[in-house]
Amino acid sequence: MEFPLLNNEMRPEHDLHVSKVRETMARHDMEAILVASSVNILYLTGGICRGYIYLPLDADPLFFMVPPAEATRHDEISIRKPEQIAEILQDRGYKLPACLGLEYDDLYYSEVERLTKAFGGITTANASRVLREARMIKTPWEIDRMCEDGLKQAAAYSRVAKCYAEGMTDVEFQIEIERLLRREGCLGYPRVAGHMMEINMGSLLAGDNADQPSPYDFSMGGAGTDPSLPVGASGMTMLPGMSVMLDMNGGFNGYQTDMTRCWCIERIPEAAQKANDCSRMIMRDLEKFGVPGAEIGEMYRRAEKIAADCGLSAYFMGHKHKVRFIGHGIGIELNEGPVIMERNKMPLAAGMTLAIEPKFVLPGIGALGVENTYVVTEQGLENLTNYPEELEIL
Amino acid sequence: MEFPLLNNEMRPEHDLHVSKVRETMARHDMEAILVASSVNILYLTGGICRGYIYLPLDADPLFFMVPPAEATRHDEISIRKPEQIAEILQDRGYKLPACLGLEYDDLYYSEVERLTKAFGGITTANASRVLREARMIKTPWEIDRMCEDGLKQAAAYSRVAKCYAEGMTDVEFQIEIERLLRREGCLGYPRVAGHMMEINMGSLLAGDNADQPSPYDFSMGGAGTDPSLPVGASGMTMLPGMSVMLDMNGGFNGYQTDMTRCWCIERIPEAAQKANDCSRMIMRDLEKFGVPGAEIGEMYRRAEKIAADCGLSAYFMGHKHKVRFIGHGIGIELNEGPVIMERNKMPLAAGMTLAIEPKFVLPGIGALGVENTYVVTEQGLENLTNYPEELEIL
Repeated sequence: MEFPLLNNEMRPEHDLHVSKVRETMARHDMEAILVASSVNILYLTGGICRGYIYLPLDADPLFFMVPPAEATRHDEISIRKPEQIAEILQDRGYKLPACLGLEYDDLYYSEVERLTKAFGGITTANASRVLREARMIKTPWEIDRMCEDGLKQAAAYSRVAKCYAEGMTDVEFQIEIERLLRREGCLGYPRVAGHMMEINMGSLLAGDNADQPSPYDFSMGGAGTDPSLPVGASGMTMLPGMSVMLDMNGGFNGYQTDMTRCWCIERIPEAAQKANDCSRMIMRDLEKFGVPGAEIGEMYRRAEKIAADCGLSAYFMGHKHKVRFIGHGIGIELNEGPVIMERNKMPLAAGMTLAIEPKFVLPGIGALGVENTYVVTEQGLENLTNYPEELEIL
Repeated sequence: MEFPLLNNEMRPEHDLHVSKVRETMARHDMEAILVASSVNILYLTGGICRGYIYLPLDADPLFFMVPPAEATRHDEISIRKPEQIAEILQDRGYKLPACLGLEYDDLYYSEVERLTKAFGGITTANASRVLREARMIKTPWEIDRMCEDGLKQAAAYSRVAKCYAEGMTDVEFQIEIERLLRREGCLGYPRVAGHMMEINMGSLLAGDNADQPSPYDFSMGGAGTDPSLPVGASGMTMLPGMSVMLDMNGGFNGYQTDMTRCWCIERIPEAAQKANDCSRMIMRDLEKFGVPGAEIGEMYRRAEKIAADCGLSAYFMGHKHKVRFIGHGIGIELNEGPVIMERNKMPLAAGMTLAIEPKFVLPGIGALGVENTYVVTEQGLENLTNYPEELEIL
């Protein structure tokens, strides 16, 4: 296939991504799509550029690129603006589709409107869902990238305790951990889906700040330090008996892992130990349960049941404010499909990568629980974020 | 006005923001808008929440809020989903508008589509431009916030040289500077408009990495460390004779300043000195020229002329790749209106805040020049980012 790639060494891998998108398009009767978002251009080419990929079901994809990037490439079609694309397609003998897929969930309204007009007011459909569905099942190469993320994230987490000093605020501690991650190679920029996901390099929650609701779509809250970014660490001093939950950015290579671990200041309260142990029980259960074909909603129900059996329902997935999911797909974006929530009847499939995060918020103590990023295999869930799950003392 | 605010102490300020938006709506014959983006909700309320603000020209605004945030507020209308809004408006005696303004440039296509359907397929228009126009002229309170940003950013920059150690890579140096900024209170999350603005806490460019084109909409490039984020520091070792340009995040309170300064490793090449001096000459010229009523395009032409008079045209605003602007509005977002480019015939107005960045890229040396954030006053441009502009040696 004559498909130009930003990273030519990776051509077979990205040809595979194109094939996966095509198969998904065929299942959804989507005749052609025009991709413009960073996330999906990265998925299809291995890099970021200012451009558009036209991908029809029955002909070669074409890559339209807006300078300056053209200086570094030779095999794409250089354009100044997307209004040129339809004519070039027709010049090259491509028949325009009856309906063009555009990324409704990844592009701003005005961008989709412009592309629609650029194709003469063509009928359009939502290509974001098709692309998300194709991206949901990872290839071995993608899983390798996420393995690498998990190793690096674990390496940084292993040095977290050394950064702590008595009397630190949660923000001061987080800043040292951000530095650890960045020195390990973390890119720091969190790619997310949707606009209610604003955060800087992740969340550190100490004590009762974990029980402050946040308007965002994250599993946990926190007041933040300013009304303009109400999430995460609040600037409070960390005191003995508090738990500290760390859920930081794990993106090192375009993909990312999501990993949470908890520490306690000076001593581990009994209730904290119990909640963290319960989270680990849920993990062990789901690791076995999570084989291809297992229903995703059932994972949520099993987790909820184990929490109830431990007498911890009131604290499960939040206390003052609860969320109704225990995990999510992850890959190029932090929040990919599937969402692990009760009403999701979708079966697991081999190659899905899932961040599972059964967490508790205990008033007077803080947030507890672990989060791992897994890949679904025939033997169950395989952990990509191997780091001890026991509560440690700071 | 019975307008509920997230931060009630700030009610008079945010009532003023509402009035400014209303005046702009009236100028553009926009009868009513429904605001949903974080940026504009922050502008209108002083905080972030999951909700919608319905703002008609001729009646009180109404605030629709989706839990969990309702727990902390008392004077808003609690809803589960935006599909409830139209009916509640009618119950309260509001007449639905013939045309509803929605944020075409700030919301994803599917969000605007959903809101349009929630109003029975109502005719819509682009409210983003109206909101951007209203936000372009800052109030005294907003300028105070940006003064605070400038002071904190300058305080962090004053400690930059102490972070440098011989043999460091650009990334290692940047990580220490990120820590300085974060410890000064920088929130780290960069609010930007548009999807080609991906970056982590700003850019540090050393030597010829400054001449690597980037696909993003920033004024300068840089290869980055990974194909998934091709911008900024590349991991190269900083060597004697190279310039180092620092253009880092200045957001501490929901607003932000933008400030660039340069350093040289061990010695200052003559050409580097000349380029930095030329940038400063441009600044001094524009500071006087920039009174209310001055044409924005003329600022660009004056800058270009001074660069040409210095014999530096080939290096002005990039070398291998050039951008066609020398600055931009700034406030809640890094890139607000107006854009300082040749074809912008708009006159300056008192209260506009501008990041002006006449920069040069010299092959074999690196990026040079300064960037300040200014407010337009009757006396010309007033600098909010006071920090010495001279090249310093590392």
